[in-house]
Amino acid sequence: MKPPVLLYACPTVDQKGWVTALAAACPGIDIRLWPDTGDKAEIEYAFVWKQPPGILSDLPNLQVIFSLGAGVEHVLTDPSLPSHLPLIRMVDPTLVTGMVEFVVMQVLHYHRSMPDYAAQQKAGLWKQLPQRLPSERRIGILGLGELGAACAQALTGFGFNVAGWARTAKDLPNVATYVGPTELQPFLARTDILVCLLPLTGQTRGILNRETLSILPRGAYLINAARGGHLVEDDLIPLLDDGQLAGATLDVFTVEPLPASHPFWTHPQITIVPHAAALTHPATASRIVAANIDRHRRGEALLHVVDRARGY
Amino acid sequence: MKPPVLLYACPTVDQKGWVTALAAACPGIDIRLWPDTGDKAEIEYAFVWKQPPGILSDLPNLQVIFSLGAGVEHVLTDPSLPSHLPLIRMVDPTLVTGMVEFVVMQVLHYHRSMPDYAAQQKAGLWKQLPQRLPSERRIGILGLGELGAACAQALTGFGFNVAGWARTAKDLPNVATYVGPTELQPFLARTDILVCLLPLTGQTRGILNRETLSILPRGAYLINAARGGHLVEDDLIPLLDDGQLAGATLDVFTVEPLPASHPFWTHPQITIVPHAAALTHPATASRIVAANIDRHRRGEALLHVVDRARGY
Ligand SMILES: NC(=O)c1ccc[n+]([C@@H]2O[C@H](COP(=O)([O-])OP(=O)(O)OC[C@H]3O[C@@H](n4cnc5c(N)ncnc54)[C@H](OP(=O)(O)O)[C@@H]3O)[C@@H](O)[C@H]2O)c1
Ligand SMILES: NC(=O)c1ccc[n+]([C@@H]2O[C@H](COP(=O)([O-])OP(=O)(O)OC[C@H]3O[C@@H](n4cnc5c(N)ncnc54)[C@H](OP(=O)(O)O)[C@@H]3O)[C@@H](O)[C@H]2O)c1
Repeated sequence: MKPPVLLYACPTVDQKGWVTALAAACPGIDIRLWPDTGDKAEIEYAFVWKQPPGILSDLPNLQVIFSLGAGVEHVLTDPSLPSHLPLIRMVDPTLVTGMVEFVVMQVLHYHRSMPDYAAQQKAGLWKQLPQRLPSERRIGILGLGELGAACAQALTGFGFNVAGWARTAKDLPNVATYVGPTELQPFLARTDILVCLLPLTGQTRGILNRETLSILPRGAYLINAARGGHLVEDDLIPLLDDGQLAGATLDVFTVEPLPASHPFWTHPQITIVPHAAALTHPATASRIVAANIDRHRRGEALLHVVDRARGY
Repeated sequence: MKPPVLLYACPTVDQKGWVTALAAACPGIDIRLWPDTGDKAEIEYAFVWKQPPGILSDLPNLQVIFSLGAGVEHVLTDPSLPSHLPLIRMVDPTLVTGMVEFVVMQVLHYHRSMPDYAAQQKAGLWKQLPQRLPSERRIGILGLGELGAACAQALTGFGFNVAGWARTAKDLPNVATYVGPTELQPFLARTDILVCLLPLTGQTRGILNRETLSILPRGAYLINAARGGHLVEDDLIPLLDDGQLAGATLDVFTVEPLPASHPFWTHPQITIVPHAAALTHPATASRIVAANIDRHRRGEALLHVVDRARGY
């Protein structure tokens, strides 16, 4: 059997690390680095992230498109994306590990009043603050997929009162699930720390806004580790300034890098992380891609295919 | 049977919450609030924390002394403490919960470069930092007792490379144990994030000093959630300033409250928490005290008796 031919088109990402890892995971693979495609008719697979629009539409024998990231809205924005081809999103155990670390870290940071203790340290003030038990702290996770379910599970391990919101019902131990638009309101009303782990789709864009965030109990916290487009960014600072929200951790932004002039940078209640909550790890992720290529070549069903209608 | 008579002598602690909780856990108990002892000959139990020295030596029928906290060095410093009486330390599930939260939180904080991201936010800098996998991060726990073992276990759940140091050998899944003075050196040499959860005794006082902390790999982090006396405080800032340590979280200090003039308050690499890593929770802890009083009245062996010779 001829080795597989893969087009690598991820202009914003460290190329060397990925190509090395893909080659190691898939011995013999023929990797073409966009724009050096060679004979376009030979290309069977594409590995993409923020690829230049249009480049996937003139590959006559392209068979599968792999996204480097878990979110695929960056891939789907290309209107010339061949609609008949399977698009595979990234599901990588180290991506899950990284997100669980990040979410648990920031939930604990708020649960344990670390921003208040930092302010006290600045003021030279020694004062123990009241400490809720984890069972008295209600965490709410928007999205209970690969990432959201793993975070929910990890948080129940600490004894938090955890609920999640998804499109379809779930059966996760010790996690109350709220389903669909009608149950968003009661979900938010019982949530002290809100974590967003939704995919960005037509249904979820702008879901974190003045109206929804005002349903949270006063003094709630927000952690957005999904996509900048989930948050109506202009709504956030007024909610923080009037005390409806006590703090926000933002890993993702409508425009990335976050522009230097953006008021988020200097707001004392906003923690900014540069889209680093969970990085796809080339070594492990490449093995997942290689396994899927193998399945395809053996004629088996592909794993982690995006449902284009749902958008995730 | 007459109800038990208990002397409450914790002058620095919220009295109302504790007395209410003790009364609820031990219905009918006769609680005497020091200095109103009533007839001293009636007192059978004492519940103490930083009690005024000498007050326990003239209670002729005192039978058991309970410490409000897990550490008992504050109780033991009273030279008139009757040496024939059992001293019980606090072992409380919510104390363990609180410490696990605190240690996991600060380990993740350092593991995920949050101090560096905070500095970048201050400078308006958007830059992803290299991220180690948890298996590439070596956590070392000094003390593998009630608190240390629980923290070690929780950290293995995140996939960290965890080791611990204790006086006697341990068998904890996925935790390498180093034992006694001779194995302290190799334990420190393999530790990127050092967590102190030892009791303060003659053997452990000053164990965190220039010499021991210099054995850690350059750029290591320190989390001291045990006692201020474990750290030679004057050694810390030079180690941070020359880069041997990258950061320190201190919950405990030689003098508490930490004096206003102390240089720790303003050092950018030191996080100060006012002895709040794990608070004994009156409701749950009182039930543990009540159960031990019951055991004593039934003539059963007491739980969590301090070994006075070991000092913990
Ligand atoms: N910041 C970072 O570093 C980073 C890293 C990786 C991923 N992410 C983001 O995280 C997102 C989630 O990743 P994942 O792998 O967990 O995705 P996933 O497995 O596809 O899970 C998505 C979850 O969202 C729910 N959902 C989708 N649309 C919904 C709607 N309209 N209403 C209610 N629930 C809805 C889904 O519900 P059902 O289960 O009912 O389908 C599912 O539970 C990605 O899309 C990406 O944007 C961010
Ligand atoms: N900051 C806070 O809010 C807070 C709250 C609670 C407690 N604490 C502190 O945490 C300490 C630990 O509590 P704990 O309940 O876990 O105590 P513990 O169950 O008595 O455990 C003590 C551990 O330290 C080890 N150890 C003692 N002396 C040693 C020595 N000379 N060399 C090596 N290892 C030694 C013991 O070894 P073996 O197992 O071999 O005996 C044991 O593993 C308390 O004493 C207190 O000071 C702080």
